[in-house]
Amino acid sequence: LAYAPRVRPLVTLTTDFGTRDAYVAEMKGVLLGAGPPDLHIVDLSHDLAPFDVRAAALFVRRALPRFPQRTVHVVVVDPGVGSARNGIVVEVHGQTLVGPDNGTFGLLYDGTERVHVIDTSRIAQGRLSSTFHGRDLFAPVAARLAAGVPTASLGLPTTEYVRWSLPEVRADGARLLGEVIHVDHYGNLVTNITAPQLEGLGERAQLSVECAGARLTGIRDHYAEVGMGELLCLIGSSGQLELSAREASAAELLHSGVGAPVRVWKEA
Amino acid sequence: LAYAPRVRPLVTLTTDFGTRDAYVAEMKGVLLGAGPPDLHIVDLSHDLAPFDVRAAALFVRRALPRFPQRTVHVVVVDPGVGSARNGIVVEVHGQTLVGPDNGTFGLLYDGTERVHVIDTSRIAQGRLSSTFHGRDLFAPVAARLAAGVPTASLGLPTTEYVRWSLPEVRADGARLLGEVIHVDHYGNLVTNITAPQLEGLGERAQLSVECAGARLTGIRDHYAEVGMGELLCLIGSSGQLELSAREASAAELLHSGVGAPVRVWKEA
Amino acid sequence: LAYAPRVRPLVTLTTDFGTRDAYVAEMKGVLLGAGPPDLHIVDLSHDLAPFDVRAAALFVRRALPRFPQRTVHVVVVDPGVGSARNGIVVEVHGQTLVGPDNGTFGLLYDGTERVHVIDTSRIAQGRLSSTFHGRDLFAPVAARLAAGVPTASLGLPTTEYVRWSLPEVRADGARLLGEVIHVDHYGNLVTNITAPQLEGLGERAQLSVECAGARLTGIRDHYAEVGMGELLCLIGSSGQLELSAREASAAELLHSGVGAPVRVWKEA
Repeated sequence: LAYAPRVRPLVTLTTDFGTRDAYVAEMKGVLLGAGPPDLHIVDLSHDLAPFDVRAAALFVRRALPRFPQRTVHVVVVDPGVGSARNGIVVEVHGQTLVGPDNGTFGLLYDGTERVHVIDTSRIAQGRLSSTFHGRDLFAPVAARLAAGVPTASLGLPTTEYVRWSLPEVRADGARLLGEVIHVDHYGNLVTNITAPQLEGLGERAQLSVECAGARLTGIRDHYAEVGMGELLCLIGSSGQLELSAREASAAELLHSGVGAPVRVWKEA
Repeated sequence: LAYAPRVRPLVTLTTDFGTRDAYVAEMKGVLLGAGPPDLHIVDLSHDLAPFDVRAAALFVRRALPRFPQRTVHVVVVDPGVGSARNGIVVEVHGQTLVGPDNGTFGLLYDGTERVHVIDTSRIAQGRLSSTFHGRDLFAPVAARLAAGVPTASLGLPTTEYVRWSLPEVRADGARLLGEVIHVDHYGNLVTNITAPQLEGLGERAQLSVECAGARLTGIRDHYAEVGMGELLCLIGSSGQLELSAREASAAELLHSGVGAPVRVWKEA
Repeated sequence: LAYAPRVRPLVTLTTDFGTRDAYVAEMKGVLLGAGPPDLHIVDLSHDLAPFDVRAAALFVRRALPRFPQRTVHVVVVDPGVGSARNGIVVEVHGQTLVGPDNGTFGLLYDGTERVHVIDTSRIAQGRLSSTFHGRDLFAPVAARLAAGVPTASLGLPTTEYVRWSLPEVRADGARLLGEVIHVDHYGNLVTNITAPQLEGLGERAQLSVECAGARLTGIRDHYAEVGMGELLCLIGSSGQLELSAREASAAELLHSGVGAPVRVWKEA
């Protein structure tokens, strides 16, 4: 008789804890101790920028929708830990998300999400530290969810939770006004301007982009179209306009970062 | 028929190797090649401070007791690799630990531990490098232990191994004198003063803490009780007094680190 | 009835992506979504030096041969992504390698390798980004390979692929002339001079090594033979001559790095 698995319980971990300390390890110990015996833990990141909920939300929006249905995702960037902010479980698009209600999951909300407030008294009776809910609350909740415990048994549904959205791209006559929303590991400046928005302006070869004092004409297809160390614009893998440099850091070359204004227009 | 697993063999890895080099990868290859087919490897950290056995021991004390019974933990921070120091297998509190006998496991010793010296000639016949016992000795030992090989077949029991303990908190009249024993990823200064020791002094709101020229009154419950960037004291998730700063690094603000003296007293 | 596993499908990941961004997480989502249900993902590194194909090739040569036969290895250091360079699947020594054809796998080639060019139109119909083939091409290919899809169904065999080799050690009279090919996490300077080459020169105790202005006599067995912070030479765990410093960085002490010339000779 062959091995006939049920759906394997997957729990992903995303934090700003780093791994120099024991924090991530403690969470994994709790998960493996309290979860189902075939639990599979998948590290997504422990290197998110400390305290940066906005960066966490961008990470979440990109990565989580690609996982198999019913994956449980624990995401802990939690500067308000121990205060009155709630812990929540979010079900959206077939994924289950666990973490603090501080906006981390906000960019996935589209009105179809179902949100429950974790009842701490049911999970961490008297053992809830005030600074490490990742270990004491979210890992135990994820272990239960991975074992098939229904969300409704972990707390009450709510319609009160933190919503937010990215700054919108504005039109100024024939120009698009956006901004840098992320700087990646390579120094690429990722903007909030999307490929469809650019298509509305004109052909890629005729578009000019201005950011941090640099002006570039033409949206390229890939890095190797320019010389080593030169700046270029292209549509990044998230479908958004990026300013990059070939085998170099655009952020360093332009001394620029998150929040920098970006203008795009069609050359006459 | 449902999938009825036996206990899944778990091996955790904790090192100061970083992951820029192939060292961790080589260990994983050896483990997966020599271990049982359903071996599950769990990364705890590869970012421990290089050569810092003391930091490794603190990590071990926090993280390892949280894992399921019979987990095998490989911990390699090994500045004395290749010298006369032994490799050991430690069984304590239901966990099995593998690594160099240099104090890494010392903070878990309470008299119940059983320690075996690894017989290198049984494990790594003629293939033992002088600089990488993680790959050539500890990974093969862990693979065997995960497969159910008894510890006694890997070497002889010993009562000679490295013991040590953290500096003790001293009382100076009505004051407690401790010190900073760890600086975490966020810059929190973790001390060796425990919550029960503080309780002996008086109510938390009336306690004053002095460290690195700063004086703080009141032990807080969580970070959000003070303003952004401000210092505070609280009981951290290990049950020890910590000096922190809200969404900032107390270590940077105080130019302080491991070994800094900490005084606590009750205000009159 | 006991659990009788077939060979477990293993996919390892090695990239220069870092984990601050969602790139690695997206790849894992794709792998887990498209791969077999019992797919086991093993992180080898996401901290390779950005854009450094040479460093990736050295990593690959050290780590990959240690894995169980039929492991699938995805290695993505891909500065030419989106340009005309091919994606390839390499079968060599029982391992299967997936990534860009830019030399990453070159140090494993010995004439027994079989190389296929990935037919992008079969894998990523219309959804191939120009900057992230790790997610859009190599992860889907690895998922198929892990599920048992034959390589030949993913593209055509080729004999045109990027070959290269490390600089060779030269003899200058009775001297060996080599160079530093890697600086590791600890600051050890790894050279291209091998233990057998040194044996040809004479006894280890009588050999002198010159690099970056330093001259050291005697090849040591392990770090603890010299004082703290002192330089030494030894045969590293890859079987190559290394310049190291005890609990310190030889690279920093010598202000040296990749490409530095190294001379070895026997003292008269």
